[in-house]
Parts: sequence; structure tokens; C-alpha cells
Amino acid sequence: MAFKKRFLKSEDNTGFGTNSNNSGGRFFNRDGTANVQKIGTGILNRYSWYHTLLEMPRAKFLLLMIAGYLGVNLVFACIYYMVGIQHLAGMAEGSPLKNFSEVFFFSTQTFTTVGYGRISPTGFTTSLLATLEAFLGLLSFAIITGLFYGRFSRPRAFLKYSPNAVIAPYKDGTALMFRMAPYKNNMLSEAEVKLTMAMEVDEGGVKKDKFYNLAIEISKINSLSLSWTIVHPIDENSALAGFTEEDIRNTEMEIFVFVKAFDEIFSNTVVSRTSYLSSEIVWGAKFRLMYHPTEDGRSTVLDMRMLNTYDKVTLPDPMPMPTPA
Amino acid sequence: MAFKKRFLKSEDNTGFGTNSNNSGGRFFNRDGTANVQKIGTGILNRYSWYHTLLEMPRAKFLLLMIAGYLGVNLVFACIYYMVGIQHLAGMAEGSPLKNFSEVFFFSTQTFTTVGYGRISPTGFTTSLLATLEAFLGLLSFAIITGLFYGRFSRPRAFLKYSPNAVIAPYKDGTALMFRMAPYKNNMLSEAEVKLTMAMEVDEGGVKKDKFYNLAIEISKINSLSLSWTIVHPIDENSALAGFTEEDIRNTEMEIFVFVKAFDEIFSNTVVSRTSYLSSEIVWGAKFRLMYHPTEDGRSTVLDMRMLNTYDKVTLPDPMPMPTPA
Amino acid sequence: MAFKKRFLKSEDNTGFGTNSNNSGGRFFNRDGTANVQKIGTGILNRYSWYHTLLEMPRAKFLLLMIAGYLGVNLVFACIYYMVGIQHLAGMAEGSPLKNFSEVFFFSTQTFTTVGYGRISPTGFTTSLLATLEAFLGLLSFAIITGLFYGRFSRPRAFLKYSPNAVIAPYKDGTALMFRMAPYKNNMLSEAEVKLTMAMEVDEGGVKKDKFYNLAIEISKINSLSLSWTIVHPIDENSALAGFTEEDIRNTEMEIFVFVKAFDEIFSNTVVSRTSYLSSEIVWGAKFRLMYHPTEDGRSTVLDMRMLNTYDKVTLPDPMPMPTPA
Amino acid sequence: MAFKKRFLKSEDNTGFGTNSNNSGGRFFNRDGTANVQKIGTGILNRYSWYHTLLEMPRAKFLLLMIAGYLGVNLVFACIYYMVGIQHLAGMAEGSPLKNFSEVFFFSTQTFTTVGYGRISPTGFTTSLLATLEAFLGLLSFAIITGLFYGRFSRPRAFLKYSPNAVIAPYKDGTALMFRMAPYKNNMLSEAEVKLTMAMEVDEGGVKKDKFYNLAIEISKINSLSLSWTIVHPIDENSALAGFTEEDIRNTEMEIFVFVKAFDEIFSNTVVSRTSYLSSEIVWGAKFRLMYHPTEDGRSTVLDMRMLNTYDKVTLPDPMPMPTPA
Repeated sequence: MAFKKRFLKSEDNTGFGTNSNNSGGRFFNRDGTANVQKIGTGILNRYSWYHTLLEMPRAKFLLLMIAGYLGVNLVFACIYYMVGIQHLAGMAEGSPLKNFSEVFFFSTQTFTTVGYGRISPTGFTTSLLATLEAFLGLLSFAIITGLFYGRFSRPRAFLKYSPNAVIAPYKDGTALMFRMAPYKNNMLSEAEVKLTMAMEVDEGGVKKDKFYNLAIEISKINSLSLSWTIVHPIDENSALAGFTEEDIRNTEMEIFVFVKAFDEIFSNTVVSRTSYLSSEIVWGAKFRLMYHPTEDGRSTVLDMRMLNTYDKVTLPDPMPMPTPA
Repeated sequence: MAFKKRFLKSEDNTGFGTNSNNSGGRFFNRDGTANVQKIGTGILNRYSWYHTLLEMPRAKFLLLMIAGYLGVNLVFACIYYMVGIQHLAGMAEGSPLKNFSEVFFFSTQTFTTVGYGRISPTGFTTSLLATLEAFLGLLSFAIITGLFYGRFSRPRAFLKYSPNAVIAPYKDGTALMFRMAPYKNNMLSEAEVKLTMAMEVDEGGVKKDKFYNLAIEISKINSLSLSWTIVHPIDENSALAGFTEEDIRNTEMEIFVFVKAFDEIFSNTVVSRTSYLSSEIVWGAKFRLMYHPTEDGRSTVLDMRMLNTYDKVTLPDPMPMPTPA
Repeated sequence: MAFKKRFLKSEDNTGFGTNSNNSGGRFFNRDGTANVQKIGTGILNRYSWYHTLLEMPRAKFLLLMIAGYLGVNLVFACIYYMVGIQHLAGMAEGSPLKNFSEVFFFSTQTFTTVGYGRISPTGFTTSLLATLEAFLGLLSFAIITGLFYGRFSRPRAFLKYSPNAVIAPYKDGTALMFRMAPYKNNMLSEAEVKLTMAMEVDEGGVKKDKFYNLAIEISKINSLSLSWTIVHPIDENSALAGFTEEDIRNTEMEIFVFVKAFDEIFSNTVVSRTSYLSSEIVWGAKFRLMYHPTEDGRSTVLDMRMLNTYDKVTLPDPMPMPTPA
Repeated sequence: MAFKKRFLKSEDNTGFGTNSNNSGGRFFNRDGTANVQKIGTGILNRYSWYHTLLEMPRAKFLLLMIAGYLGVNLVFACIYYMVGIQHLAGMAEGSPLKNFSEVFFFSTQTFTTVGYGRISPTGFTTSLLATLEAFLGLLSFAIITGLFYGRFSRPRAFLKYSPNAVIAPYKDGTALMFRMAPYKNNMLSEAEVKLTMAMEVDEGGVKKDKFYNLAIEISKINSLSLSWTIVHPIDENSALAGFTEEDIRNTEMEIFVFVKAFDEIFSNTVVSRTSYLSSEIVWGAKFRLMYHPTEDGRSTVLDMRMLNTYDKVTLPDPMPMPTPA
């Protein structure tokens, strides 16, 4: 990075440290998770299985449950089989495979507590195993009930961000803008947004990550029902002051977005994060309005397809880089 | 709108935009939801099914569940029937319809895990199907358990608003008033209210929506047990200053009400919204007190039928429209 | 009340109104609920059944569930019986009473989805009824699961208050004191308390309820693990300044206590309320410390039996009633 | 403690009292729970069974459930046995032990609602008992479902603290430092920390516990993804000013740590506590950085094994003890 950084107060409270360039890659992934790996804790301790199961995609979660269901029943079927099928009354005996499948279905009928009773345990060991399996089955469904509820009651913001941020004309100068919109039938109020920029700065030959707050024109809104364009005016107090298109391209920067709002249906605070890299910033562009009245004029339509729709525009010359006072 | 708007600071943080009149109809519906439609996202993505099921009326929700229950069992009954009834032991066979109903009831006995066992699966395919159906049944009830809990534990304010707002005499002038009351045995504390007025303003020939905060005499109360009359004094700082009865009738305005309180039983924040259009504002009226002591004087009675009870009164002349300084 | 009230600023934001003496009895019951009845809404609308079931004493709640369980099964038993016992296979028939009891147990086996299968439905109507009963049973237990969870996960403060407040010597004068202590193994932090006094005041012949904030010496504490004595110093800014023992006895007053804290196990805000009437205030008393070290000096013991233990003391003369400036 | 305490303002709002040395041992245990025992309430009232079951270690919780399951079924088995095995159809009768085990398994099949039906109740009393047992079984699993959900949805910070705090060089002087790191895949934001020091002080011959706030250099961070080193500079405003290594060793002190953060997956506030005794403070040490970039430089690695890794360093002379002004 060619130019010298001005004496702008950098932020120390990002949680990413300030004393050296000891971290690698982007700080936040686009989906808002931190780009950090943890070592030195046992595999069992490293993950909160509940957090993991809550964030797992729906299809994977369902497959995992089905696999678990079949797996547990296979294990029990093997045990019943080894204990001996003579301890199960009502079996339609036949080939070993036929017998095993009968035992397997007895197991599933026990685990789910269907218990048709055509096959039923008679021996002590088998009965005790069935006793435990039914209990285990009920515990499993108790846990699954909690997981389902945990998954779908998890407060989420359901916000989409424009894939690009733009440098747009704003008042007499320019501003960094991007926008977001709620894409579901949820109802967000009292939304607020915070912008932090991480930039690799050359400080006496040593490369360091510095963090800067980016001030926002309107950082809180009462109700987030339409699209919301975040505007960071690039004035003399901005960490982006004086940047040309090339400066942005040549600087390793990352802009963290942190949104906090109140979901009125969940009655809970929801948060959402994303980040923009320099390569995701478009120089000289202006977003088009993405909502319009319905034909009958009685309601408003928000068109999510236009979230990233912008027109290229010519920008005024960037303000000269402020010189240290 | 005939008169010129004074230089009153309008609000930019409503979330409804300020740069043009690009939205249609009222902003909020009377039930507090935003009057916005979303297009451009797939039908599956557009709705949070959980939010939808949580807000669905009770009767519709129950019907949906019953329909789902019967539907799933019809599907399984068809499959069992097609696989062949000879794989089900214990069937009381008869006409095809009789057979199908037997299969259908076998299906429901499996799905609910009742499993009487008079009919029970014997073939491999049928047994496997029953294995899956019982599992699906338990998952369904796990989900339903979560939905029930989500529905009835959803924090709600249980507030009713007077259908009308009134312009009432207040101190030396007038004030806009409306009132609300909690209608259930819930317990709200630390309630606060925010009023925002949207008004279509003619700005150099262009019609724009402008938003104004309406100051409230007492905007926070410690405990919301009785009725609460919200008072916006129409003084020289009010966006309604100088309005006559005709002005109000001829202006497209909408007053947003946003209430936030702490529910002491849910131990959670609850919010409630409504809005008043100009046509819902009564000129020259005064609410009657809606609570009184019990006959033995040992308790207080809140009469919800009087929520919108007011007496017509003559108002002092509206203060003259303030002129730009 | 014999003496004239000074010009002390009264509070308007209690939520109990200020313009007249239109309420009856105490404002809050000792258990912290508001002493208000609601009329004019239908019986179905008046209660949030969920709030009601959440606050119901445990024994009553269990009895209600058992009664509901038996009631539903009696209804179904009657229907099965009327449809005809010949549609149930496996009945051990006998006297009508014997038959009805068999049908009743078939019903309970269906509702709970035990489904032994000794008795099983054969006719279409009976099978359909059983199909619905099993579904209803599962829905019921889905609801009960939610109710149980709602009941025991409901954040509560588990605070006990001293039944009496005292007027105790404090610094050079006196102070109103009462105390509270957490009586369970919960962990409260960041507790804060608010005191409001309601007093019937004679204003030009009209009796009005006036409300006053009572300032507290230390109104927030970091951790509420031991007892907490709330101290309201009766200085010249206190609404109680100049009151003698007789004044307190002869005045209709009520002191509202509102406590808010963060429960570290529930990770939720909990609130607690109580109120003291004049008859519950002891003149000239001082609480004894209610905790002491264990014998080995390695831990602290909080003795809940001493919550209301105080010693009678002589108070300094009350400061003269401040006269209006 | 040899030296005289300066006139530093102590804190009164810790919740541990200030008027005397009436408590024993450390205030907080290392796991963050308060070191307080409660007496004087009945055993049933003393514990919130829900709080207890939520905090119980996982293995103990599972054992308790299995024990409860077996216990309840043993009780029911005894009752069925006493009522008479002739009221159970389908028993494979044999020795008393064989009979009892049959009855026990009938009980478990009823409690779990498996209900194979090989054994089924016929007598009225036995049927009624089975009716109640199945109901009790479902209630139990309803409760267990809630407990599971309560346990794994309980918001926890998943923070590990360095076992030691250190006195490290800092700017021109020294600072007390310790650090923490999140060890799971949870996502904490807006973390803040509060430090309070309890110290036994000799006040005119009476030993008293005094509490002091310890100021922190950066007490709030936006995102807690890496390690966080808490820095309390020992300047002239610090309660630790002028302490030598011996002073620390010879003083009974305890530093309370209270962390509050927002968990982005639970969407809830989480708190965490710990405390350091003087014996856990290392004089003259400096933590090593515990994170570094991955080899490909695209991500950051946090090494939890280094949480307590420090290098011994020589400290500058402690600043002279401030003398009372």
C-alpha cells in the first residue's frame, strides 16, 4: 500500500488484537462467522454439539436423524440376534437374513414404542434390552423435540445484503454504500448497524492490522420493512478519505457489518453479520430504488431481485488525502 | 393539502425512506404489520414457515394439523395397499373399500405409535414402511410439540387500542389522545410508547412522505395495569400545530404507535403496534375514565367496553399555524 | 391525615392515574399482582390461559391434568359404548358396568398410545374414533410438554421479602428499611430496586392518590447472594420527612417494591414485586445481620429464618416537617 | 497486612455487605458460584430443582433418569404383583421371581407406552393402575423433554480463563493481566468485563472486607473470537498501587471477574464468572500470544493449550504507595 496512513484514531476494541499482524486471511467469512480455527481442546470439547446441530442445514440434519435411527436399531437388532431369537415370541422364522430383518423390525417397533406385539420379548435379557431400548427411544425423541424447537425458534434476522458495496456520489462528495433487506415475513424494528474497517497498515516497516469505525449517516431505524441503504460519507474524518479506485484495489481491507434488531414475532434480539473485501467494492455506482407502489396504489412492493442493482456513475474527484496536522 | 408545511425537522430513521413518494397505501395495517409485499424470492424462501405457523389463527392451525394427519395417513395407506395387503397379518379382509379402510387404520395406528397389533406388518417392504412411518410420526409430534410451545409461549402484549384517536382540550390548548388497555391477566411493566406521524407533503410540486416524531406528555410508565391515555400536546413544536378539523380531514396522514413493555410472567419484552389514519381521528372529544372502585372499595375495576367511550366537547380555536422563523 | 402535604414533586408515570381517587383498595397485592379486575371482555378473552396455567400452584395444575385425562377418556368411553361394543374385538364382556370399564380402558390405552391390543377396534366408526383419539392424545401430550417446560423454565426471582419494613436509626436521622434474600440455589446479578410510595392526600377537600419516588441509598448491587437491606433515608427530600409514628398509622399509604435482576442460570431478566402498607411498617426497629461465617470459616451461612428478625430501638425525634418554601 | 490502606473509595454495591467481616472464605468459587450456604428454609424450598437439574453434570443427569425409570417401574411392579398376577392376561408364569420379572416388564411396557400386548391387564384395579402408569409415563417424558431442552438450550458463555493472573510490565509501569478465550464454536459479540477486588483491610483494629473496582484498559470488545487479555493498569488510582510481591502474598484478596456477552447463535445474553485469589497471581510474567495464522495464511488458529503460557520477566519497581492527600 503506497500511501501513508494519517493519524486517525484506530479502534482497539474489535476483539482481534492490535499489537501485531498475527492473524491470517479475512476476519469474518461472508456468512458472518469468524474465520478462526481452534486447536488444543479435545474434539469432544471443541464443539458445542447443540450449536452445531442448530446451524446445520435442514437436509443434513434430517439425514443425520434418519441415519441415527437406522444405526441405533441395527445395533439393537444385532444384540437381540446374538442373545437369541428364541427369546422373541411370534417371530416368523426363516433364513438368517429373514430372522435378522424380523429382529430389526422388532427393534424399531420397540424404539418407536409402536409395539404391535406380534413379536414380543419373552426371555429376561431380551425383555430387559427392550425395556432399555424403549426408554432410549423416548429419550431420543425428547432430545429431537428439543432440537426441532431449538432450530426453528432460533431467532434469525433473515436479512440479505447486496453482494457489492459501492462508492456513490453523496451530497458534495462520495459515500460508501451497501444495502440490506429482510426477505421473509418477519418484522424487524429498532434496527441498528455498526461498520468497522480492518486495513493492513505499514507502520515503520511492520505490517499491522488497524481497525477503524466507519460513521454512518443514519445508523438506527425504527422499522426495517423495506430495503435499508447504509451510507458511510467519505469525509475528512473517514478512514477512506482520499482513497482512489486504485488505492482501494491495492489495499487489503475488510469492512465488517454488524446488524442488531428486534424481531417482533420472536420478541427477541436478532443479529446479523457480513463483511466486504476491497474486491467487493464497486467504484462509481449508485443503487436503484428497489421498491414501488402496487398498481392499485394501496400497498408497497419490495423487489428482492433488485438488491444489487446499481447504475454506473462518474464520481467527483476524491478529496485530497488529509495530511497529519 | 392547502397549507404550507413549516420548517419542522422531519425524521429520517423510520425505515420507510425519505427521498420520494415511492410507497403505496398506509404504511402499517391496523394490526401493526407492515403494508409491504415482497417479490423476487422463491415461494419457499419468502415465508418463514415458523413465523407463519406462529401467527396463524388457532382454528386454522388446528385444521391444518388434522388435514396433515389425515393426508399423511392416506398417502401411507395407498402405499401399503399398493404393496399388497397380504403383507399385513390380522386384516379383516372384505371389499376393496373395507380393505383400504383397514389399511388406513393400520397406518394411523402406526403413525401415532398406538400399535394395537391386531394388524401387523409381516413382509419386508411393509415392515420397512411401517418403520419409517412410526419414525415420521414421532418426528411430526416432536415438531408439533415445538409449534404448540412456540405458539403459546410467544410473548404478546395483549393490548387493545381505542379504535379512535381524539383531539381533546388539554391545558390551555389541545392535544391528540388515544388510549390502550391490557385486556388479559398478564402483567406489563416499564411500558413505553413512541408516536411517529407520516404526512404527505407538497414540496415544490413533488409529493413526498415526511415523518415527524410526536412528543408525548408521559411516554413511560412503571406498570400498565389500568388504561393508559397517550397525550400528544399540540403546541408550537407539534407537527399538528395549526391544523383545523378540515386540515386533518384533507391530509393523508398516518400516526404510527409503537409500544414496548416488559411482561412479568413471560419475563420478556413484548411489543405492540397500531396506526391511526386521519379518518380515525375525532375532532373535539374527550375520553371518559374507564375504571372505578368496586362496591366494597377494596379493588379497582377496569371496564374494557369503555375503551372508546368519549364525550363530544368544543375545542378552543387551534393555535395559529407557526410561520417559518 | 392531619397534616398538610408539602410541595413535593409527585410521580405521574406509575400507570395508576393521577387525576382523581378513582381506584379502590391497595394497588398491588402482597404477591406483587395488581389489584385490578377487568370487565367487558368475554370470559374466553379475559384470561390468557397460558399465563393462568403458568402461574397455577403445582398441585392444582397436576389435579387439573389428571381430571382432564379422566374426563376426556370418559367422554370417549361413552361414545365407543354408544357406537356399540361389538365393534371392539377382544372385549371380556360381562355386566354393562364391566363392559363400560373395558371400553374406558380401551380408551385410555388409545389416548396414551399404549395400545396393548387385547381390545382393538374393528368397525369403521370405532376405528375412526380411535384414530382421532390417538391423535388427540398425542396433541394433548405435546401441549402438556410445552406447559411443563413453560412452567419450570419460567424465570422467577425466588426472592423473599421481610414481612415488615422498619423505621430504623440511620446516620444522624432515620431511614425506612426492609430486606430481601434469595432463598434458592439460583444466582442473581446486577439487581436493582425501585421504591414508589402511594399516599392518599387531601387536596383542597378532594382526596387524591399521589405517588412519590423513594430514593434508595444503594439501589443496584452486582451480585445478590446474601441478604439485601434496602435503605430509604428519611431526609428533607423524602416524602416521609416529618412523619411521626401516628402519622404513618393514620395515613393510607402503600410502598411498592419493584426488583429487577439477571438470573445467571436462566440467562434472563427476572422481576419481583411486593408492597408494604402502613400497618406493615414497624416504628423504631433495626434488622439483625442474617448471615455469619461457617465454623471452619471457609464459607458463609445465610439464615433465612432471620429475614424478619429485628430489635426494637429508640429513634431520634423525627425531623420537623419541611414547610413550603 | 502490614501497610496502611490509602483513602481510596471502596465500592458498596457488591452485594456482600460492608459493615463488618461477617462472611467466611472466598466469596466466589472458581467456577463462579457464590460461596454461600442457606439454612432456615425447608429442604424442598431450598433448591430450585430445575436450576439443580440444569446444572447437573451430564453423566449424573443420565444416571438419575435411568435410576428414576427403573425405580418407578419397580414400584409399579410391586403393586401389580400385590394386586395379583391373575389380573394380567398372557403371563408366562413360573417361579415367583419369573413372575415378578414378567410383571416388571409389563410395567415398563406400559410406562413407555410400548404396549406389546402379550401381557395385558384384565382386572379393574390392574387396568386402572395401567391407565395411571401410562399417563405418568407420558408426563415423565414430557418433563424430560423439557429438561433436555432446558439443559442444552441454556445459554452459556463457553469461556475458559487462564488459571493464573499475572503482574506484567505495561507501558511505563505494571498491570494485572489475565486472559480468557471461547473454546467452542459459539460466537460471542459485545463482550464486556467487570473486575472487583475484595481485600481484608485493618480499620482501627477491626478487620473488614473492602471492595474496589479495578479499571480495565479495554473493557468492551465487539467480537470475542480470539483470546482476550484483560489489562488492569496499576497506576495511582488502582487499589493495587504500591503492592510488592510480598504484599500480594500476605494479603487476603480475591479478584472477581464478571463477563457478559451476547451469544449470536442463542441470540441471548450469556454471563460468566470466575475469581482469582492472591495465591493465583504470578508476579513478573507476560502472556505469550496464543494465536497465529494458518500455514496458507488464509485463516487464524487459536491454540487453547497456550491459555496459561507466560514468560517470566523482571518488573520495574512498584510505584511508591500513594500517601493520603
